[in-house]
Amino acid sequence: MDFAYDARTEELRDALLAFMDECVYPAEAEYARQLSERADPWAVPAVVGELQREARDRGLWNFFLPGADGAGLSNLQYAPLAEITGRSPRLAPAALNCSAPDTGNMEVLSMFGTEDQREQWLRPLLDGRIRSSFAMTEPDVASSDATNIATRIERDGDQYVINGRKWWITGALNPDAKVLIVMGKTDPQAETHRQQSMILVPRDTPGLTITRGMTVFGYDDGDHGGHADLEFTDVRVPAENLIGTEGDGFAIAQARLGPGRIHHCMRSIGIAERAVEMMCRRASERVAFGEQLARQGVIRDWIAEARVRIEQLRLLVLKAAWLMDTVGNKGAHTEIQAIKIATPSTVEWILDKAIQVHGAGGLSQDTPLAEWYASIRTLRFADGPDEVHKASLARKELRAHA
Amino acid sequence: MDFAYDARTEELRDALLAFMDECVYPAEAEYARQLSERADPWAVPAVVGELQREARDRGLWNFFLPGADGAGLSNLQYAPLAEITGRSPRLAPAALNCSAPDTGNMEVLSMFGTEDQREQWLRPLLDGRIRSSFAMTEPDVASSDATNIATRIERDGDQYVINGRKWWITGALNPDAKVLIVMGKTDPQAETHRQQSMILVPRDTPGLTITRGMTVFGYDDGDHGGHADLEFTDVRVPAENLIGTEGDGFAIAQARLGPGRIHHCMRSIGIAERAVEMMCRRASERVAFGEQLARQGVIRDWIAEARVRIEQLRLLVLKAAWLMDTVGNKGAHTEIQAIKIATPSTVEWILDKAIQVHGAGGLSQDTPLAEWYASIRTLRFADGPDEVHKASLARKELRAHA
Amino acid sequence: MDFAYDARTEELRDALLAFMDECVYPAEAEYARQLSERADPWAVPAVVGELQREARDRGLWNFFLPGADGAGLSNLQYAPLAEITGRSPRLAPAALNCSAPDTGNMEVLSMFGTEDQREQWLRPLLDGRIRSSFAMTEPDVASSDATNIATRIERDGDQYVINGRKWWITGALNPDAKVLIVMGKTDPQAETHRQQSMILVPRDTPGLTITRGMTVFGYDDGDHGGHADLEFTDVRVPAENLIGTEGDGFAIAQARLGPGRIHHCMRSIGIAERAVEMMCRRASERVAFGEQLARQGVIRDWIAEARVRIEQLRLLVLKAAWLMDTVGNKGAHTEIQAIKIATPSTVEWILDKAIQVHGAGGLSQDTPLAEWYASIRTLRFADGPDEVHKASLARKELRAHA
Amino acid sequence: MDFAYDARTEELRDALLAFMDECVYPAEAEYARQLSERADPWAVPAVVGELQREARDRGLWNFFLPGADGAGLSNLQYAPLAEITGRSPRLAPAALNCSAPDTGNMEVLSMFGTEDQREQWLRPLLDGRIRSSFAMTEPDVASSDATNIATRIERDGDQYVINGRKWWITGALNPDAKVLIVMGKTDPQAETHRQQSMILVPRDTPGLTITRGMTVFGYDDGDHGGHADLEFTDVRVPAENLIGTEGDGFAIAQARLGPGRIHHCMRSIGIAERAVEMMCRRASERVAFGEQLARQGVIRDWIAEARVRIEQLRLLVLKAAWLMDTVGNKGAHTEIQAIKIATPSTVEWILDKAIQVHGAGGLSQDTPLAEWYASIRTLRFADGPDEVHKASLARKELRAHA
Repeated sequence: MDFAYDARTEELRDALLAFMDECVYPAEAEYARQLSERADPWAVPAVVGELQREARDRGLWNFFLPGADGAGLSNLQYAPLAEITGRSPRLAPAALNCSAPDTGNMEVLSMFGTEDQREQWLRPLLDGRIRSSFAMTEPDVASSDATNIATRIERDGDQYVINGRKWWITGALNPDAKVLIVMGKTDPQAETHRQQSMILVPRDTPGLTITRGMTVFGYDDGDHGGHADLEFTDVRVPAENLIGTEGDGFAIAQARLGPGRIHHCMRSIGIAERAVEMMCRRASERVAFGEQLARQGVIRDWIAEARVRIEQLRLLVLKAAWLMDTVGNKGAHTEIQAIKIATPSTVEWILDKAIQVHGAGGLSQDTPLAEWYASIRTLRFADGPDEVHKASLARKELRAHA
Repeated sequence: MDFAYDARTEELRDALLAFMDECVYPAEAEYARQLSERADPWAVPAVVGELQREARDRGLWNFFLPGADGAGLSNLQYAPLAEITGRSPRLAPAALNCSAPDTGNMEVLSMFGTEDQREQWLRPLLDGRIRSSFAMTEPDVASSDATNIATRIERDGDQYVINGRKWWITGALNPDAKVLIVMGKTDPQAETHRQQSMILVPRDTPGLTITRGMTVFGYDDGDHGGHADLEFTDVRVPAENLIGTEGDGFAIAQARLGPGRIHHCMRSIGIAERAVEMMCRRASERVAFGEQLARQGVIRDWIAEARVRIEQLRLLVLKAAWLMDTVGNKGAHTEIQAIKIATPSTVEWILDKAIQVHGAGGLSQDTPLAEWYASIRTLRFADGPDEVHKASLARKELRAHA
Repeated sequence: MDFAYDARTEELRDALLAFMDECVYPAEAEYARQLSERADPWAVPAVVGELQREARDRGLWNFFLPGADGAGLSNLQYAPLAEITGRSPRLAPAALNCSAPDTGNMEVLSMFGTEDQREQWLRPLLDGRIRSSFAMTEPDVASSDATNIATRIERDGDQYVINGRKWWITGALNPDAKVLIVMGKTDPQAETHRQQSMILVPRDTPGLTITRGMTVFGYDDGDHGGHADLEFTDVRVPAENLIGTEGDGFAIAQARLGPGRIHHCMRSIGIAERAVEMMCRRASERVAFGEQLARQGVIRDWIAEARVRIEQLRLLVLKAAWLMDTVGNKGAHTEIQAIKIATPSTVEWILDKAIQVHGAGGLSQDTPLAEWYASIRTLRFADGPDEVHKASLARKELRAHA
Repeated sequence: MDFAYDARTEELRDALLAFMDECVYPAEAEYARQLSERADPWAVPAVVGELQREARDRGLWNFFLPGADGAGLSNLQYAPLAEITGRSPRLAPAALNCSAPDTGNMEVLSMFGTEDQREQWLRPLLDGRIRSSFAMTEPDVASSDATNIATRIERDGDQYVINGRKWWITGALNPDAKVLIVMGKTDPQAETHRQQSMILVPRDTPGLTITRGMTVFGYDDGDHGGHADLEFTDVRVPAENLIGTEGDGFAIAQARLGPGRIHHCMRSIGIAERAVEMMCRRASERVAFGEQLARQGVIRDWIAEARVRIEQLRLLVLKAAWLMDTVGNKGAHTEIQAIKIATPSTVEWILDKAIQVHGAGGLSQDTPLAEWYASIRTLRFADGPDEVHKASLARKELRAHA
């Protein structure tokens, strides 16, 4: 259980921290301005492209992806870097080409894609030239229960025909999101975990309609492509768009899950750290009833609690990363569940207190705190609600002591 | 301590419940449609006007206002009615002409307005022909600390000249909000609680600029006039626009506070009740992993907790109302603080659980739950953060046992 | 819903408050001294008897019992009196002959006892000449699940023969507890709720063995007769000791429950109030790091929270009392469950904070706080764990919105 | 940050786990029996001595003490071993000669003792032949505020004369506790942190009176020497009993603190782990209303939460241990404060739930859960209340972001 940063990590941290200070934080205001002024509500502001070029020039690129396709980092090497990007969650992950859902999609294509699929989609994704979406969640099925997926993917000659509805498809409203990976059932009669397949669907394929963007609290998350409600009506794609073979969908989804969860948690810690910073700074600057907020016992209590909780959470995330590296995603299953459970409640609590210290402004566009709260709140549903993960974790614990 | 509903209350409750069933709930979908389709993002959908006419025809009007100007109800009579309107908080209070901040403004004009002020502003407000705003909060001053207000109201001949900045001015972006009551300092040298005055400022007065709308989580609350950031630059109004005399501002603000708080709390309980209903219905309908959500122990626990907490909260609000009626706002001070503290945390908790039972849809535009959460969250700042009220309540308790 | 104290209540409150000030509080130290010095660890200190005589002389007696046998108070009249006795929970309820489990037993005998039973047991209980116990809970059966009781009560000629084990039989170690009401099965073949009966068993009946006293945290509760573990081996009593007829046991237990729960809750509020008082006084007196504890924000926050929670809880208890008086125990079922759920968690929280303000001394014999905590903690199990009551309450709520 | 167990740790863990299984767990029942039957309420049961002999034979001895006097383990090596001893907290630490307060006292003598002091007191302590106490806490001074200590240690010729009152002196009622280390002021005029000194006082020195044992909840903790209230009246000891030189007291106390805190936290995690085990086992065995408790959602939720919280807490404790080893107690200050804050609240929560799953028996002598709860509860006061530590931690955080 060695969580120390090795030389490569230290080097990349230094480079990334410099990039944050020199490029990312200074760009935040410009980003907000461009967002408020753009014509297309789903377009990505130009400043993101500029940051991407700069980041790539600095060698800060595709950190998330192990192996030759990416930066070749282990999870434990990536963890502290991902945390740092979380400090500016709208800009930094995109700047480094490390944004969900592209990261998961690139992992899938890197692991399971054919030569052609890699050439056509993985290459431009790795280069940051296009974006992508992952279409799994459906409105009528608990998203934690992949076996119940209703979308059909049916073979018809040398094509597959897709019918169904997907929602909460993050990024799909972004005009740059050129392709979706769609999960559906190729064989509802097969055994439970061999019924599903994944298939690549170009965004402009006839029959694919974006009916609306879902909002989270009041945010449409238009800066990173929103969350689309999608209708698939006789959507036809070539048979070679299938990823792996028929029935591989469930296994691919499982493989995609672990890293996705841990990346979210790492970035969330970065959010929490920045929130604590903001809370401390505000408390030091603001005076009410003749006293600095920083001198109020209740606010000090929040700050101390925040520190104690973050420290514990980070260590757990590091342990999960280390386990994924050393014994694999399966061996890290309990820890991945644990961070999935612990992260949103911890970070939500901290953001709520940071908001409170900021007064009503903390709920508004004048700070990013409320927007971060909204995005962290969604984690309690991502890949199934916390309650499902807790029940599963408890069953394991009960078996261990039976 | 008699909280029983008297005959008049029972009669009005029946009439109001019928109005909700026959008119309000059915109008909710149309309201949402009109909102999404309107050209002016701050305009009020037409359906509200229709509901207002219907409500007034049914005698469901101005319940909030005691005395001859209004329906003449006591706080205890109004409480259960306000709770019912809270069940559709975007529509029902407006339909009955019982929306903040107009309610508080009408109270002020009813109590302190001159004959002319009443004629010019109170009459059309009572008739629902115009809306209004209340401009007190400032960005650089803790809003719980009225003595620090920086906005100046200076006498110049037969006019007053206003300079300053106000924000979070709810409703001011609504083009129908024809007048603002503005709090500022007429005499910074007077004793602490005699420095402030209130003055009526027509919305189209030169020098008054709406610089932007503040958002709450991502919501602009455009359906009820948003929350404006306002700049007053040499805004001139006739001297007779002053409410009361110079130096009355603080006392008027205090008089306005009590009812405002209790109305918010009453409506919040209505929100909580509807959230519990929605949570129960969703839990009964939704199946995950082959089991109705309603059969899951954790969800049952939330439902029971919600019931237990609502029951306690409602009784406390009723007690505060009863005290206001029997011993006055001052005598009810502790209880008004107590409901101000208890309400948002209770209702937030219930909304959070209701959202969780609804899955990601609970955070989206498909339910009103996230929007309600956002609006309840602001109550923890309204008239000063909870922490200020707790500190004050504790001082009183400490004195009692010294 | 009228919770106002009527004239009789006001009069009794005044008399009771005077009794507390003049007799009970001053006797607390002497009580502690006698407890620590007594020879028999289960004997009741003499000061209790003196207080009883004084209370009876003052007309402060058997308040808990409605009807001609008792003081004839309604639940709503008794509630504020019971709360006051809760402020000195070891002394005042006993002084007024209003201690559990005698109260419940007197209710049972008053409602269901034969003339002989009333003469032999109810009379001396009403006079405070003897004490009693109620033997229902069994180690191997969830005590919330009366239908599973294993103890047998078998008819043998003109006797009943009792076999089984009971535990947590409060008061039974007190040598003055001359009789037990024992619940057992007379007919395991009858329908579920007609299998049980209750029977009177004099404490010295052969075959009845007290194997030990159970402790709660470290307390043996020897000052009020402890909690006995009892073995019944062929215990024979006359057939006329049966209360009601065979099969009435379940119904009698239900009838006994409601008042028992509400009395506990009332007294618990008295405990909470006294804890707040102690917390305030200590905070005002104690200085740490040069600052009065009362000036620390965190402690003020606790005090305010305590006040807000107590106010809500008391109103809920009053409502339950009022419902029991107006629509009966059955009509008050939801509210009785609600106070059973809300009371221990609220009062535990307050006691925990009061302890914290007192420092380590708060956990010791130097304050009664830890002992009160222990006794409140047991309420989360009494008549079944909270979780059972919550599940039941949720089912009702779910049905209401189905 | 390498928390992996090295070879020596693994070896000792194996040996210790075997000792727990073969000797400690089997002895628990016998220990309870001997406790309940002993004549002297403060005597240590004989079984402890037997376990000590066995442990020493197996090389499981003085693990807590680094350097040549002890087992020479680092904090990181000791941590997992201390956790294991926490699983039987009344027996295992004593069996391995690793019980507080002897551990801290041995550290002090090992670091600061003269050759004579080491010979006379450290040697027999290291051999487990005697026990000891540490007398610092005073009733009228916040124990977190060592500078206010009132006890006087005055030089008189070749003696020191001690006057004052100490309480919560753990272990001092044990007749085997042959010596106390007493903290007092030798020079109230010196600068704040040079006023205090520590001195060795044999237990039978005239003028030293044990006035009573303090209880924690109802427990006198007589099995490990209780918590004494001590009076020092002209207690005379030779001048060479001083530890270090006059004025060293504060610095020695600081040096003693770090290890003491971390040992407590390590053992507390062992308590938590055993509580989870007991909770799981009980939930699997117990049936209520026809359903295994382990199938109830609420109980599963508790079990999952417990696991998630323990994992985080353990990692934080390991990090603190690792920091103490690598950068010293001072460098680990924040983390030591953090574990001091996090441990009791986490473990209390778990014990409360474990108790709840056990029913009323969980509060009684039939499980150790309530006793553990009481002992963990005291940690929120040990070396100052949590609130003091939180305030200090917050100040540091605020400074970091100023």
